[in-house]
Amino acid sequence: MKRLYLVPIFLAFFTSGCTNTTKEEVKHPAHKEILPSWNDSKSKADIINFVEKVTDPKKSEFVPVADRIATFDNDGTLWTEQPFYFQFAFAVDEAKAMITENPEMLEDPIFNAVANDDMTTILKAGKAGLSKIIMVTHAGMTTDQYNENVTNWINTAKHPKTDKLYKEMVYQPMLELIDFLKENDFSIFIVSGGGSDFMRPWAEEVYGVSKDNIIGSTLKLEYKMEEGQPKMQILPELGFNDDEEGKPMAIHQYIGRKPIAAFGNSDGDLQMLQWTESNPYLSLQVYIHHTDADREWQYDRHSKIGQLDEGLDEALLKNWTIVDMKNDWKVIYPNDLTAE
Amino acid sequence: MKRLYLVPIFLAFFTSGCTNTTKEEVKHPAHKEILPSWNDSKSKADIINFVEKVTDPKKSEFVPVADRIATFDNDGTLWTEQPFYFQFAFAVDEAKAMITENPEMLEDPIFNAVANDDMTTILKAGKAGLSKIIMVTHAGMTTDQYNENVTNWINTAKHPKTDKLYKEMVYQPMLELIDFLKENDFSIFIVSGGGSDFMRPWAEEVYGVSKDNIIGSTLKLEYKMEEGQPKMQILPELGFNDDEEGKPMAIHQYIGRKPIAAFGNSDGDLQMLQWTESNPYLSLQVYIHHTDADREWQYDRHSKIGQLDEGLDEALLKNWTIVDMKNDWKVIYPNDLTAE
Repeated sequence: MKRLYLVPIFLAFFTSGCTNTTKEEVKHPAHKEILPSWNDSKSKADIINFVEKVTDPKKSEFVPVADRIATFDNDGTLWTEQPFYFQFAFAVDEAKAMITENPEMLEDPIFNAVANDDMTTILKAGKAGLSKIIMVTHAGMTTDQYNENVTNWINTAKHPKTDKLYKEMVYQPMLELIDFLKENDFSIFIVSGGGSDFMRPWAEEVYGVSKDNIIGSTLKLEYKMEEGQPKMQILPELGFNDDEEGKPMAIHQYIGRKPIAAFGNSDGDLQMLQWTESNPYLSLQVYIHHTDADREWQYDRHSKIGQLDEGLDEALLKNWTIVDMKNDWKVIYPNDLTAE
Repeated sequence: MKRLYLVPIFLAFFTSGCTNTTKEEVKHPAHKEILPSWNDSKSKADIINFVEKVTDPKKSEFVPVADRIATFDNDGTLWTEQPFYFQFAFAVDEAKAMITENPEMLEDPIFNAVANDDMTTILKAGKAGLSKIIMVTHAGMTTDQYNENVTNWINTAKHPKTDKLYKEMVYQPMLELIDFLKENDFSIFIVSGGGSDFMRPWAEEVYGVSKDNIIGSTLKLEYKMEEGQPKMQILPELGFNDDEEGKPMAIHQYIGRKPIAAFGNSDGDLQMLQWTESNPYLSLQVYIHHTDADREWQYDRHSKIGQLDEGLDEALLKNWTIVDMKNDWKVIYPNDLTAE
């Protein structure tokens, strides 16, 4: 299933007290456990074995630092994407605020549905309806204004089921994995179907991945001078859809190197994993499998969000690493650590 | 004048013996001169004063490390661009090799002109003619094949006037400037009208700027599976033209932060300099002015390559830094150091 531009999102943020593993320069700090929130499992062993091989100069699988590129999908891989992409939750919240100030928007059935939390009608409106909500809330403003809107939302908006801030719904085991790879001199990139402008205001701090390493879908831009000042305006037109075939293309255009490790959770990540597998260096392909109905969500082949069907077949066939969230992860979210 | 996609290029490379300044972590290594190939001048003082202000935590102009972004144009700013963009020299050389293997190409007047070094006819053919040469030599192959072609060319091709390898025609003073900024914790990006795929095979080594920080124009790509192997094919269609308004847009899309320092040499860089100037932080705008007919080239307002007209007016009006190559630089190319 094609994923709609920008419907994906993500979020997470270290409230004080959340534990991020330390960022020391040592490869495997002696005083701390590797991937502490991961149970001993095939997936944990796959990851550690891979890192040990590619970082050991005495091994034939050694990979020079410059080529240690790891790419991560975001929605469903680094943070939750249910019951719908968090960027869409942002769009709905923004649309509601706009309707309050512009009640004439209620004449449009789609915004009427938004105002009444009528998700059934919204989803029935299909791509055209979703696109209308996205464009109204993501375009027609400057990049600075959009950045401010996202920042305000991400610092206050809470998930309806968990009552956590959306940005607290990142996966603690994946934060540890990012840090583990960084300790081993990997360059980390996020390659997401979500909007890069939506991710950058908060993801740098939450994941420890710098803004220029956060790659996502884009809307077209317009640069113009207004009273001697340059303005960057966001246009209501898709620029680049960073999903499916778009992911290897974005990796080529933005990074210029093929990854040796790629992490995803849906069919939209399959091409990125295939592309990574074609690296002449030893490479690692990992799918996060959503198997935990109690602590997170359980879905794969038949989900409308984050469908994992063709990708699951290929992963099983090729013996890629499949992370079983329920059994492989001790905790899901950072705050779960303090609750234990 | 609009610049034609991909006609620009660049190149340079440290042959052994070329001196690159050391990459020590100290801000101003006590044992070495800052910018040694620069004569004492307003432009040298502008640059050093700027760096001192933004890196001094006690000064009001202090800029946090994450925001110390510097962007450099390539053609005419980091290496020579005369008598025509080096990427176009590559295209002509590639086309000649193709004609040898496919003599039927001679039936096309433009390739006939290429085969006969008839630059007058080529240039008269205008954008359509240039585009044909570019597309034939840059598209219709995989990214791997193109990478190999560029690598082979850059390691052997020589400039007709200087008989230097093209990649030896980078500006020694600019190499020192890049290193000086890196020593002061700037992140360096190249933002060029030239093709990113053309620059990345050699520019990382020559300039010490990693591939993912090299941003350029792109052709469209196609990702497809062939016998179970993913291939990335370059299509004969412009994807993104990283020139003029395209530069601030690329900066936004790729970097996600506004630079505090920008370096260019032509009207195609004006928007990048304007965008940088709109940074709330103290910022630096620098134009390299080609004033040295003896050691390099002398041109500005009326040049067909690297025209600097509107930009020169704005630089003079706003008191931007204008580097006078003839008077401000002790040497032009790295090899000139040993010749002294």
